[in-house]
Amino acid sequence: MKLKLKKLIFGAGRPVIFLNEQSAKKLNAHIGDRIEIRYDGKEIIAVLDIVKGFLKTGEVSLSEEATKYISPKPDKFIDIYLALEPRSNRYIFKKLKGEELSKKEIESIIKDIVNNALNEAEIAYFVSGVYEKGMTQKETIFLTEAISNTGEMLKWHYPLIADKHCIGGIPGNRTTPLVISICAAAGVRMPKTSSRAITSAAGTADTMETITNVEFSVSDLKKIVGKTNACLVWGGSLGIAPADDKLIRVERMLNIDPESQLIASIIAKKLAAGSNHILIDIPCGEGAKVSKNKAINLKNKFLAVAKHFKLKMRVVLTSGIQPIGNGIGPLLEMYDVLKVLKRENSPKDLERKSIFLAGHILEMAGKAKKNKGVVMAEEILYSGKALAKFEEIISAQGKKELINLAPHFFKIKSKKSGTIKKIDNFAINHVARTLGCPTDKSAGIYLYYHIDDKVKKGEPLLTLYSESPKKLQEAIELFNVNSSISIK
Amino acid sequence: MKLKLKKLIFGAGRPVIFLNEQSAKKLNAHIGDRIEIRYDGKEIIAVLDIVKGFLKTGEVSLSEEATKYISPKPDKFIDIYLALEPRSNRYIFKKLKGEELSKKEIESIIKDIVNNALNEAEIAYFVSGVYEKGMTQKETIFLTEAISNTGEMLKWHYPLIADKHCIGGIPGNRTTPLVISICAAAGVRMPKTSSRAITSAAGTADTMETITNVEFSVSDLKKIVGKTNACLVWGGSLGIAPADDKLIRVERMLNIDPESQLIASIIAKKLAAGSNHILIDIPCGEGAKVSKNKAINLKNKFLAVAKHFKLKMRVVLTSGIQPIGNGIGPLLEMYDVLKVLKRENSPKDLERKSIFLAGHILEMAGKAKKNKGVVMAEEILYSGKALAKFEEIISAQGKKELINLAPHFFKIKSKKSGTIKKIDNFAINHVARTLGCPTDKSAGIYLYYHIDDKVKKGEPLLTLYSESPKKLQEAIELFNVNSSISIK
Repeated sequence: MKLKLKKLIFGAGRPVIFLNEQSAKKLNAHIGDRIEIRYDGKEIIAVLDIVKGFLKTGEVSLSEEATKYISPKPDKFIDIYLALEPRSNRYIFKKLKGEELSKKEIESIIKDIVNNALNEAEIAYFVSGVYEKGMTQKETIFLTEAISNTGEMLKWHYPLIADKHCIGGIPGNRTTPLVISICAAAGVRMPKTSSRAITSAAGTADTMETITNVEFSVSDLKKIVGKTNACLVWGGSLGIAPADDKLIRVERMLNIDPESQLIASIIAKKLAAGSNHILIDIPCGEGAKVSKNKAINLKNKFLAVAKHFKLKMRVVLTSGIQPIGNGIGPLLEMYDVLKVLKRENSPKDLERKSIFLAGHILEMAGKAKKNKGVVMAEEILYSGKALAKFEEIISAQGKKELINLAPHFFKIKSKKSGTIKKIDNFAINHVARTLGCPTDKSAGIYLYYHIDDKVKKGEPLLTLYSESPKKLQEAIELFNVNSSISIK
Repeated sequence: MKLKLKKLIFGAGRPVIFLNEQSAKKLNAHIGDRIEIRYDGKEIIAVLDIVKGFLKTGEVSLSEEATKYISPKPDKFIDIYLALEPRSNRYIFKKLKGEELSKKEIESIIKDIVNNALNEAEIAYFVSGVYEKGMTQKETIFLTEAISNTGEMLKWHYPLIADKHCIGGIPGNRTTPLVISICAAAGVRMPKTSSRAITSAAGTADTMETITNVEFSVSDLKKIVGKTNACLVWGGSLGIAPADDKLIRVERMLNIDPESQLIASIIAKKLAAGSNHILIDIPCGEGAKVSKNKAINLKNKFLAVAKHFKLKMRVVLTSGIQPIGNGIGPLLEMYDVLKVLKRENSPKDLERKSIFLAGHILEMAGKAKKNKGVVMAEEILYSGKALAKFEEIISAQGKKELINLAPHFFKIKSKKSGTIKKIDNFAINHVARTLGCPTDKSAGIYLYYHIDDKVKKGEPLLTLYSESPKKLQEAIELFNVNSSISIK
């Protein structure tokens, strides 16, 4: 069916096509149906919305996400069809039933995710299938390839590109800006692309955004890396591994994170970003995403998939039983990073962990000899070279004034004297999100103590910050209910 | 945040709120976020879309689905908030992990489905959880209650309201209009509400729509039943069990149908429709939705849940190994129904099955003595009383001219002589859907033979009908590939 395009400036988060009721009837289409749009040799699938009043029969409008892709000229005719059910639906159902998927079937699912042929509910079925039934190593490799191949691939002229990645789950664990600054100061090239928070109070991209720009084109990113050896940007605007962004959006709804998808997602992004030396940090133990045993298992799976793709990889298991640093939330975590870099009242746990991770990378990259990485990392941090490198990267990305802390706050005090025995990561994270993290960058928690610290009755355990008194109130109530910190 | 309402006539299939970029930023909200709308004591949750150009800062527009619910006056101020993540998300995750849900948790999920606090991806997670992990009898009862309680409840002054239901999966199996006509002619009250096709080529509502109106309000429906003892309408427009409609929309994407959801969905709708005498038809065997063993198991679960709600129920297991009747597709199935009623060249399998089912209901309703139901049903059908009752119902609902068969057709001929050994329900269904069913009511399949029939080489096995030559071509190719009918 050929229809005349009527201009509409309208963003809808996904490609949407607008028809009036009569046109939709002619096409035999209902609200929510997939419509195939063809224009000038290009094709895109969009979801149907029915508009009254705005469009005449024979006219069509598209959301920005659709026009961006096919760039039609105004008043041109575009051709539309009712799209068939995507074949990949059957493969998703196969996975839900517990069957192994072939390379072709996995490619088909990922391709359909990228080109919007699968909707979010169908993606959720895929995620649950992988969550419930798992994937073989073969399937994980196919998934990794499919995710990395369906987007931009960064190419570098340098032979060695390093990267680090943490599987997450630990509040305050903002080592990335420190590790990157230390390693880049030593001459290791680390074009670091990070995500925003998925299930946590802050991601590295959220934290960096409190002090600098994080959204760049590929060519701008290359300029920044050429100048400073590194960058600390948001991966989402580069168009690498777009399937992964959509998978993460759906996973986030339920805070679900199937193992093989986790591995595929991380390695696919590294492959697409052109990295070949990779350090993976798996925090484990009680209160972490994974137990020690699961972490060992996960480590072996990571190494097997990395080997297939000829990546040099080290996987380290770190303690994940409590938050790291004092700040939790984008801005408060940036405060911690700056304290470590400036060596002013720095949280020691964050400092030690960052040095440990940087040491590994310095060794992998051949900058330090075996077992000498930590000493080299310490020297770079203590001498102020890491701070200088951080400031160099920030100014290459465009420095911003730090925002202010959220205006509404409340100190939670200890009800007894004793020793801190447990700090519940999950509860702390939940409180931080209730306070407004990660959307409200100025919200969060300042944690005064860690496990084994002694505390006296009436001393503050943490300060909660929020942009909204209502959210602050909710967070305080939530904290009491969960007894997030136990003292004995 | 208080915003001025700007009128927009726009249907989007679900409540949508439109803001410009600045207002969204002020609210700290992103495309796809849930927004709570408050107006005049009413609350609704809508999904955010960001518009450029149409709205000024301080202005807001709503889709029809949202305005319908809160009916705001134009130019009024409405109050909006960023909605918190629905708590029921956690219960869905619990189910995915295989934990049993409490009554409260199930109620919370169903309530959030109905008031749009859960999106379709989250509903898909719930469906997969129930599919993968199943539900206990207790959970199934809670789910049944929750689904039936969250919508309209039909109340009747008559003590006995009967209903029949088939779990589906068998092409052409259009017994409902026949059973209703026979029983209503005997004085049994059967206000039958049917669904449209979920995974099949036609539902009873799709078939009835070829000859009469099927969308009515509750009060119109009561008038029709008062006049004729029965009705044959679409359940979707009555507002009973709205959660179920949303669940079905999501289940349909993957043709997934978890057992406990099937039971809850069917019994919840019967409860909400005020029925107390129910016959369930479970077609089983090779090629059916369930095997004989599974059918027995399902029967026991149905009876247990029905007992809890004090419903009188019979469950019959019927042969589901092949299509029933000659027509597959809304219009072609209506042809079969009319042939049986008019006793003109009627498909005997459809006739026998309808008499068998009607006989059970006549006995349950006390119209026939034990084992005398079938004889009574035969008498009513053969005497023309069922046809008269059907015409009475049709004219009470508003008779329409039958549409024409689809113009593009193709006869598939037998490549050899022999006996029909197998007819693949799934393949036949798939071919019918490829031809355009159930959306194209005039599309479908005419099946000339059934299992054990003898056929000669070159004789037609079936005729395919479609509105579109392209769909016809695809269906022909699909048929050959699947070898849907085997002859030996």
